Amino acid sequence: MVILLGASGYVGQAFLKNLHKRGKKFIALGRKEIDYTRFDVLLDLLRNQKPDFLINAAGYTGKPNVDACEIARADALQGNTLFPHTIAHACLEAGVPWGHVSSGCIYAGAKIVEHGQERIEKDLTLPEFGSKIDRPDSTFQIRGFTEIDPPNFSFRNGPCSFYSGTKALAEEAISEMGQNYLWRLRIPFDEIASPRNFLLKIQTYPKVYDNVNSLSHRDDFAKACLDLWEKRAPFGIYNITNPGFVTTRQVIRMIEKILQTNRSFQFWESEAEFYKTGGFAPRSNCVLDVSKLLAAGVKMRPVEEALEAALLDWKPSFSS
Amino acid sequence: MVILLGASGYVGQAFLKNLHKRGKKFIALGRKEIDYTRFDVLLDLLRNQKPDFLINAAGYTGKPNVDACEIARADALQGNTLFPHTIAHACLEAGVPWGHVSSGCIYAGAKIVEHGQERIEKDLTLPEFGSKIDRPDSTFQIRGFTEIDPPNFSFRNGPCSFYSGTKALAEEAISEMGQNYLWRLRIPFDEIASPRNFLLKIQTYPKVYDNVNSLSHRDDFAKACLDLWEKRAPFGIYNITNPGFVTTRQVIRMIEKILQTNRSFQFWESEAEFYKTGGFAPRSNCVLDVSKLLAAGVKMRPVEEALEAALLDWKPSFSS
Repeated sequence: MVILLGASGYVGQAFLKNLHKRGKKFIALGRKEIDYTRFDVLLDLLRNQKPDFLINAAGYTGKPNVDACEIARADALQGNTLFPHTIAHACLEAGVPWGHVSSGCIYAGAKIVEHGQERIEKDLTLPEFGSKIDRPDSTFQIRGFTEIDPPNFSFRNGPCSFYSGTKALAEEAISEMGQNYLWRLRIPFDEIASPRNFLLKIQTYPKVYDNVNSLSHRDDFAKACLDLWEKRAPFGIYNITNPGFVTTRQVIRMIEKILQTNRSFQFWESEAEFYKTGGFAPRSNCVLDVSKLLAAGVKMRPVEEALEAALLDWKPSFSS
Repeated sequence: MVILLGASGYVGQAFLKNLHKRGKKFIALGRKEIDYTRFDVLLDLLRNQKPDFLINAAGYTGKPNVDACEIARADALQGNTLFPHTIAHACLEAGVPWGHVSSGCIYAGAKIVEHGQERIEKDLTLPEFGSKIDRPDSTFQIRGFTEIDPPNFSFRNGPCSFYSGTKALAEEAISEMGQNYLWRLRIPFDEIASPRNFLLKIQTYPKVYDNVNSLSHRDDFAKACLDLWEKRAPFGIYNITNPGFVTTRQVIRMIEKILQTNRSFQFWESEAEFYKTGGFAPRSNCVLDVSKLLAAGVKMRPVEEALEAALLDWKPSFSS
């Protein structure tokens, strides 16, 4: 039996659906039912229910967006750092293996290999990368961060958003603390319009800005997380995005082509312009390497394929 | 038997001395001996040693001062928030009561009663308070924050320094989590020159700025903490300062009079001037009410008396 925490959230719902589909016996809990953020309450629950596995899909992302975490710092730390810390202790004590929805947003940029030399580049919006990113070749390649690379968008290695800081600190606090998976999600999307869905966000922002990112199809993500556990892959950190990366312009071209939208998209001229007028927390834009996930035998379709499928099946209405 | 964590630190040393003096059996631990920041290691220790009580005097204060915590945010959160969180879980599970050195720096200002009306005033350096603070009377009184007042210099109720944020969040995370005391220390001092001693700090700052604070004589503090435990006072939060408050000018007058120092003290013209040129993290300056401590039957001499005693016995040399 599996215990799912944060079942009503955006990512929690995908786990719920996947557990159903697999015919897994599970208990889905929200904080309204039981205050599982308390160590003693959670440990009692684990001892009474004796689950085979626990999933933490709860977290504090900020509303309407990540900027809110710059103000609601106590809530962000409680939800994203102290809460997984509590779970780690309770699961260790009860001997329950578990998985935590972490985030790829603890990185900025990508690794660039140019003429055989690899370096980390935090800002891929610089003009020098413009056309090269669209057409990587043997002289210019983009590689994602692996699970071995230390976060470079965290409290320890800043600057970072407060949200990213809390997520990176959680990894540091719970990694190798008992038996757990740290599943790194990155910009979720799918065919269902929702304020958390990247494909809807892009369509509703007054202006978008071009950047380079790995993305996670929400259902593919939950499926891959559960696959890791069912395959009994070694515990540890896993980047879980659809292989590859896309620029915002590429995604917009796909939206225009598939959804036949009439709207014209406006771009921020630069990151500097965005931060001056659009948002105030620095944003993570990054490319992740998923070799470890694929090597564990988990299948993930390429990001372009997942994006195309979501847009072909696009359901514009939603209830929030 | 008592376990003392952080025994080598400035506050830990005072506990060490007091435990010795009381003839208490204890184990004083530093992180070099054992990594007690790990939940499993600490829980094993508690189960094997079965202490009656645990004291956490470890924390991250930043070097050379609290400004360092604005940069070393991960270390500050690990040391001041996640670590007590770990202790709370381990002590709860092992059934060990404990005490944590918290801080009064989660408040700014004081309560002011003027013509019968009470209000909170965060900045007591304002010119309107100048002479009144030196001579409170029936029309103007200063009252300290009690344990019931919510912190007003914290992540939840900012602005605050990052250090204060981590300490306030720790209180929130561990309060009522098992049997513990949260002992709030405020600006420690005694007769031994040390970079952490307020009386030395004042003498070495190029400029000081006048403010109003409650202070804790280091030895009085450790003694009061242990008294609470020995008296089996109810668990919970206790402000532990010497009763009363002083302005920086008052302390300087005492230094000049008792130490017969030739140096002339320069003052920052205002808080604004200080922040512009002197330091960058906002500082907590506050008055605490110690009625709860006194009502528990713990004796504390008034702050003026403790200051005078420290200065009369002043030992200028120290090894750091």
